[in-house]
Amino acid sequence: MALLVEKTSSGREYKVKDMSQADFGRLELDLAEVEMPGLISCRTEFGPSQPFKGAKITGSLHMTIQTAVLIETLTALGAEVRWCSCNIFSTQDHAAAAIARDSAAVFAWKGETLQEYWWCTERALDWGPGGGPDLIVDDGGDATLLIHEGVKAEEEYEKSGTLPDPTSTDNPEFQIVLGLIKDGLKDDPKKYTKMKERLVGVSEETTTGVKRLYQMQYNGSLLFPAINVNDSVTKSKFDNLYGCRHSLPDGLMRATDVMIAGKVGVVCGYGDVGKGCAAALKQAGARVIVTEIDPICALQALMEGFQVLPLEDVVSEADIFVTTTGNKDIIMVDHMRKMKNNAIISNIGHFDNEIDMHGLETYPGHPSFVMSCSFTNQVIAQLELWNERASGKYEKKVYVLPKHLDEKVAALHLGKLGAKLTKLTKEQSDYISIPVEGPYKPPHYSSRSDDFQSGVEPVESIDMV
Amino acid sequence: MALLVEKTSSGREYKVKDMSQADFGRLELDLAEVEMPGLISCRTEFGPSQPFKGAKITGSLHMTIQTAVLIETLTALGAEVRWCSCNIFSTQDHAAAAIARDSAAVFAWKGETLQEYWWCTERALDWGPGGGPDLIVDDGGDATLLIHEGVKAEEEYEKSGTLPDPTSTDNPEFQIVLGLIKDGLKDDPKKYTKMKERLVGVSEETTTGVKRLYQMQYNGSLLFPAINVNDSVTKSKFDNLYGCRHSLPDGLMRATDVMIAGKVGVVCGYGDVGKGCAAALKQAGARVIVTEIDPICALQALMEGFQVLPLEDVVSEADIFVTTTGNKDIIMVDHMRKMKNNAIISNIGHFDNEIDMHGLETYPGHPSFVMSCSFTNQVIAQLELWNERASGKYEKKVYVLPKHLDEKVAALHLGKLGAKLTKLTKEQSDYISIPVEGPYKPPHYSSRSDDFQSGVEPVESIDMV
Amino acid sequence: MALLVEKTSSGREYKVKDMSQADFGRLELDLAEVEMPGLISCRTEFGPSQPFKGAKITGSLHMTIQTAVLIETLTALGAEVRWCSCNIFSTQDHAAAAIARDSAAVFAWKGETLQEYWWCTERALDWGPGGGPDLIVDDGGDATLLIHEGVKAEEEYEKSGTLPDPTSTDNPEFQIVLGLIKDGLKDDPKKYTKMKERLVGVSEETTTGVKRLYQMQYNGSLLFPAINVNDSVTKSKFDNLYGCRHSLPDGLMRATDVMIAGKVGVVCGYGDVGKGCAAALKQAGARVIVTEIDPICALQALMEGFQVLPLEDVVSEADIFVTTTGNKDIIMVDHMRKMKNNAIISNIGHFDNEIDMHGLETYPGHPSFVMSCSFTNQVIAQLELWNERASGKYEKKVYVLPKHLDEKVAALHLGKLGAKLTKLTKEQSDYISIPVEGPYKPPHYSSRSDDFQSGVEPVESIDMV
Amino acid sequence: MALLVEKTSSGREYKVKDMSQADFGRLELDLAEVEMPGLISCRTEFGPSQPFKGAKITGSLHMTIQTAVLIETLTALGAEVRWCSCNIFSTQDHAAAAIARDSAAVFAWKGETLQEYWWCTERALDWGPGGGPDLIVDDGGDATLLIHEGVKAEEEYEKSGTLPDPTSTDNPEFQIVLGLIKDGLKDDPKKYTKMKERLVGVSEETTTGVKRLYQMQYNGSLLFPAINVNDSVTKSKFDNLYGCRHSLPDGLMRATDVMIAGKVGVVCGYGDVGKGCAAALKQAGARVIVTEIDPICALQALMEGFQVLPLEDVVSEADIFVTTTGNKDIIMVDHMRKMKNNAIISNIGHFDNEIDMHGLETYPGHPSFVMSCSFTNQVIAQLELWNERASGKYEKKVYVLPKHLDEKVAALHLGKLGAKLTKLTKEQSDYISIPVEGPYKPPHYSSRSDDFQSGVEPVESIDMV
Repeated sequence: MALLVEKTSSGREYKVKDMSQADFGRLELDLAEVEMPGLISCRTEFGPSQPFKGAKITGSLHMTIQTAVLIETLTALGAEVRWCSCNIFSTQDHAAAAIARDSAAVFAWKGETLQEYWWCTERALDWGPGGGPDLIVDDGGDATLLIHEGVKAEEEYEKSGTLPDPTSTDNPEFQIVLGLIKDGLKDDPKKYTKMKERLVGVSEETTTGVKRLYQMQYNGSLLFPAINVNDSVTKSKFDNLYGCRHSLPDGLMRATDVMIAGKVGVVCGYGDVGKGCAAALKQAGARVIVTEIDPICALQALMEGFQVLPLEDVVSEADIFVTTTGNKDIIMVDHMRKMKNNAIISNIGHFDNEIDMHGLETYPGHPSFVMSCSFTNQVIAQLELWNERASGKYEKKVYVLPKHLDEKVAALHLGKLGAKLTKLTKEQSDYISIPVEGPYKPPHYSSRSDDFQSGVEPVESIDMV
Repeated sequence: MALLVEKTSSGREYKVKDMSQADFGRLELDLAEVEMPGLISCRTEFGPSQPFKGAKITGSLHMTIQTAVLIETLTALGAEVRWCSCNIFSTQDHAAAAIARDSAAVFAWKGETLQEYWWCTERALDWGPGGGPDLIVDDGGDATLLIHEGVKAEEEYEKSGTLPDPTSTDNPEFQIVLGLIKDGLKDDPKKYTKMKERLVGVSEETTTGVKRLYQMQYNGSLLFPAINVNDSVTKSKFDNLYGCRHSLPDGLMRATDVMIAGKVGVVCGYGDVGKGCAAALKQAGARVIVTEIDPICALQALMEGFQVLPLEDVVSEADIFVTTTGNKDIIMVDHMRKMKNNAIISNIGHFDNEIDMHGLETYPGHPSFVMSCSFTNQVIAQLELWNERASGKYEKKVYVLPKHLDEKVAALHLGKLGAKLTKLTKEQSDYISIPVEGPYKPPHYSSRSDDFQSGVEPVESIDMV
Repeated sequence: MALLVEKTSSGREYKVKDMSQADFGRLELDLAEVEMPGLISCRTEFGPSQPFKGAKITGSLHMTIQTAVLIETLTALGAEVRWCSCNIFSTQDHAAAAIARDSAAVFAWKGETLQEYWWCTERALDWGPGGGPDLIVDDGGDATLLIHEGVKAEEEYEKSGTLPDPTSTDNPEFQIVLGLIKDGLKDDPKKYTKMKERLVGVSEETTTGVKRLYQMQYNGSLLFPAINVNDSVTKSKFDNLYGCRHSLPDGLMRATDVMIAGKVGVVCGYGDVGKGCAAALKQAGARVIVTEIDPICALQALMEGFQVLPLEDVVSEADIFVTTTGNKDIIMVDHMRKMKNNAIISNIGHFDNEIDMHGLETYPGHPSFVMSCSFTNQVIAQLELWNERASGKYEKKVYVLPKHLDEKVAALHLGKLGAKLTKLTKEQSDYISIPVEGPYKPPHYSSRSDDFQSGVEPVESIDMV
Repeated sequence: MALLVEKTSSGREYKVKDMSQADFGRLELDLAEVEMPGLISCRTEFGPSQPFKGAKITGSLHMTIQTAVLIETLTALGAEVRWCSCNIFSTQDHAAAAIARDSAAVFAWKGETLQEYWWCTERALDWGPGGGPDLIVDDGGDATLLIHEGVKAEEEYEKSGTLPDPTSTDNPEFQIVLGLIKDGLKDDPKKYTKMKERLVGVSEETTTGVKRLYQMQYNGSLLFPAINVNDSVTKSKFDNLYGCRHSLPDGLMRATDVMIAGKVGVVCGYGDVGKGCAAALKQAGARVIVTEIDPICALQALMEGFQVLPLEDVVSEADIFVTTTGNKDIIMVDHMRKMKNNAIISNIGHFDNEIDMHGLETYPGHPSFVMSCSFTNQVIAQLELWNERASGKYEKKVYVLPKHLDEKVAALHLGKLGAKLTKLTKEQSDYISIPVEGPYKPPHYSSRSDDFQSGVEPVESIDMV
């Protein structure tokens, strides 16, 4: 594919596979809106005041139908948007076409090469002479990475005149990144520096991206504030527990048409993803065995009736293997040699000698309803960064959404599901020291840090153990 | 019952209902040990080194068979123990008899008056002229409360010569507490002051007690360090989710012999306790409706297929009501008037016009296996306080157990359940930055505060929401 | 216990443990009525017309609170009733007392000797000079057996003057039966003969009793018509699937206070009882392994995610064993030797070297709601036998209730559970050839014989298999 | 599509969409074989003796990949086969191509017109001058219908010279059938008469077809023996309960990508299909409401925790509707008008004003493992008919497979699922009067007619009810 930017009749840039699929994309987009009540509620509640007026937002996140609903929520709130996918395979071309035609600058197609992938990322970040972006929606951290590497190279170049050297690394993808920065440096030696100066912040979608952000925070190298959307309850439970409970059998059935009932399934790892997968396999009639390293998770698996054994002990008797650990080297070639003929490994890793969750995590098939929670978190996080852009409230650190906003995301979904909340009376509110309007969790109950806890130090070690 | 302390042939003090039940208690104690592998593993692992040698421990916690296994674990590790119950109804008299005869000073019987209850608490705290206790195991915080109120009165008395005035309060129970302190003050105006000076710390078992501790920490009135055992994963999941999932149908069936299948059950509140209750009723064939104030919990209920409605909407059609909110005024007389004849309310509150979880929380019927996790946490917490008594490590704050100890508690149970953990390879360990030997949760994943998070401040508000 | 019949002030005979428990029995009886809507609906619907007027009914069925509601339904419909238990341990003495005082002649107490048991059975059958019974409610077939053996002995005696010889058998219980008949023969050599001539028929409750009846039908020795209540859908599903799903965890928890979650349970046999037990254990968090001889049932177990293995393969790793086969020699001493310490066998057989379901089948703890279906079947069956006593409709064969009556039993329960049925339209009724008012199953779908099928012969063998 | 028969290079007739898809079909066929262990076991066990040598078999059954494995099992056992689909939409064209090229005469493609459909059926029945078929595998009874209508027309024609008159009916499909017969009559006025004389019998797959067969048996118009495969346990449970439990969520997710969790699902009808659907929706996190006409099924639904209400009461609050009744007029236009926007009706009927299960029943997407049981039944039934063709064993009646063959079908699947059966000892076998080698159900327990029951007549009515 020739890497030439095209333009719509209104002059907006794009590069997609096939613009003629835009109508089909629009049709599916309309259907998906019904399953994303949180985003639609955002449009209703915040649209009239145009809170993103003047904001330029770059997104690097699977360019799917669900993401399209996110993008059009951002534009409905007043933002200008440029977008790329965060995975070379995950773009739905009809979604990309509909958005490119109607709403935002899109650079994404299914089946990009790595070279094309980073070109798209660069395009999405390039707002031209007027500058930008102001905000980033990131998934996996590649847009954030490109800026950080770009700034590093520009600083080195300014200091010593040295250009980045793609041959300095064995990693072929990183060679591409360095080459891209090197080429850009010749045109504009302050491109990424200007970008980071303008940037209000990033909201990050995934575990992987969050991990990178915390590492940068601790290295002191983080260049702008970040909100960790991944650990909102309404994000993590939906993407992990409910999402995988839904998507695993769906994926297995679509891919293999296998009857799950009566089979033996092995779930490697019993975190939220593993819990969802194990529950799904159990409910579909499989016998489930769990592998774990963490005794707490192992005990939880046992309490649900799952056997806990090392992979080695069960590799030859199981029919279906699902890796959910986020770690590498879980199912190795030696394991596969011992498997039954026709055993199903639910996720063949992208890399040489490992099988990991990368593919499943980036699987674009979570249903819209699941993504509605996740993306509503993104909208709320972006709003907060934008509104506080001048207040100095956010330093170069990683933040999570406070409870009352997490609850807000949940509340935005309840109506669609026919639920009616109970209201605290004033007396009850006083009794349990929780405001009538929430947040409803006591502060030390939280799954995340907060003011309350930050002054409480933990027991650090117990010697005899 | 005449409030006279009795003594065993070896001279240990006690006051129980009927010492002749000691053999029966011993028999059940032997059976319960099999279901409490964590405590037995503590005896095996720590017993030989006698880490509690010299420690005097007072406990205020339901004097049941399971607690008896806890007490004998403490003594097996070298401690001297005095014990009372933390509820006037929850003592199992055969358990009290067995412990009084064989292991520790016990002051507890089923059906105490409030006057008797506080007398027992005072006895358990009174180690005589040698002083003590060094440590407290508390459940609900009454032992901790008595010391704090005692110290307050003694300080006032020293300052102004004023004695506490029981008539200054309408609360009849608090009148008793003040009366008790007043009487004691005449004998020894430094009794509680000396106690607090010696005290190494308390480990607290329940939500209610933990709430009191945090309040004192923020008031600056907390007199000694406290470990919050309630929020260990191996405690909270077991007591709440698994424990209630087990105990609710058990309790309903024992109390009423009703067939749960086919009935409509209402679960008020969908926290961990509510989740366990709702799952139990669903599995037993009931149709379950949830009431909630918190939209996140409401959304979770919906995702499990439960209807979410206010109590008012369902009160006349349901057969079984379970309150799990920890709040007051949940099911009121007006609700009851609208209920079906023979509707079951699983927990009639102890007080005039409310129905709360107090009774269920103090229900002594959790099976031993559930209590094994909870009590193993207590042992580990007590050990830590004792070992660090001289190091100054613990200030007058509330702490939770660090992850690696929570994992230790889980690990102590796995063998009994036939589980085998998978081991991280060195490469995997490096890849996910988690030590081979744990803890296995990334630090920002924690459900509790820790070093990592304490530096991370949250988003505090988003204005437009 | 001296075997002397006592009399109430109104002259009704009885023999129970303790008449002073009658008030307590009445209280529980009142509570149980709420859980037995089918029987109460029978009273409402049939009571006014007194259809049992003039009928003398003998019952041999566990003398429990639930049975008491059955007895009072029979009397409410106009019958006179005499009752004994069908098991030496299953009588609830307060139930027996309440019925003896208020409603019927009862001969039953908890802990009868075998000698006492058969004396009670004889008393329940003895209606004095006026003759009787007209009808029998039997459970296990002992009342039916006594009459058949009595008639056989009387015929032999008339023919040859030979008295039955208790020493002719090794079976100690059968020696008692023969002794009883022998003694009676001297007083009245036509007692059982007159009884069988008057008898309209029996309705039988259990698998064991039904098996005996079919054997007599095929031997040609059946002396009166019999209705097999055991195989009504509303009986079999309730007693077996739902009943055991409810009662197994209840029984395990009451007996042992063990936590089922996390344990390994072995269910021997996967019929309706086994299905209920396996589901209950799974739902309580156990890992379940099934043993089976029947490949269809084995395949069903697999489709629910249960492992299917012989007992030998799992005996040393399981914690809980439940036998549900109705066969003998399932769990033998050799198995037990290999079990874990503290393994639970849910039903220790009554006899030397076997463990069977006898105990569980006779366990009187099914909740009232379960028994309501079963006993409503009994009432309907008894009504039918009585109404057709003169029509010659019933020959000396075993019958099952027709579908529309089975459906009637179900319908009598729906209101209490808040269900509303959908009604067939005339067009729909024609389309599927099912009357608007039912029965709703096509005739060849039935789980039982019927007109339609009786003309259809099966494939009898396929040679190559 | 021009209705011209084509021929393979070896001279076998066929008419399929696209022969170039044969390789793709073969690939999927190879994969499907792994999931159909029963059929593969048939090949292994019966293939060597070629029991179908000389048999000509016509099949009218969805021409899918799974059916292809059935066809090749029949040919592997020695049969010659001609095949058509039993539904105009259900053919998988790659499956048809693979079979047409490699194994049997196929006349089927996706998207036939009704005219084409009946032309295909006629082709599959036309074995040319040599005569045939000997056996029919039927699904829905269309092949059987055509022969019966053909014979009727030929008899009328012989008697009175009258040709069938397509205008005598309003039903457009029946007009086609009559036209087809009329045309054939001119060529060969004995075509169907010769066919029925040769025919050994038919094995029928579906409820609809079985219903037609029983109607003909009672009319006395059935022309040849029939085996009702539909009511084998290994067929009915797999197709209905397990099959729908698997296929419903699969179909919903593929068709709509909707998140089932949190939605309200209405299942119309709670037979085996309804039970499977309700369980699947519940497990996926939906709240399920059941509509029923039959009180027994309604009571079963309640015991699983499902609300039972008429459609009218819930039509406006539910998200997903599934009709499983096999009846007509279940969900009408008036209902739809009251539904939520975007409500999902899982099966829009094929006809003007009804929604029925026709589409779902003919949905070709049951996974191979489910079809393996069903089709193994077909093979066993066909074998029996063929082997007994000369013995006169089968009259013109409808038969079901005896239990030991049903068990055989199950047994053929167990190995693949890793199950090991327990074996009866001789003593146990005697004790429960069941042969060591089965069948394992007591005769009166059967879900179908058999010798034992045929002599047992039911209670026919109870007057007062």
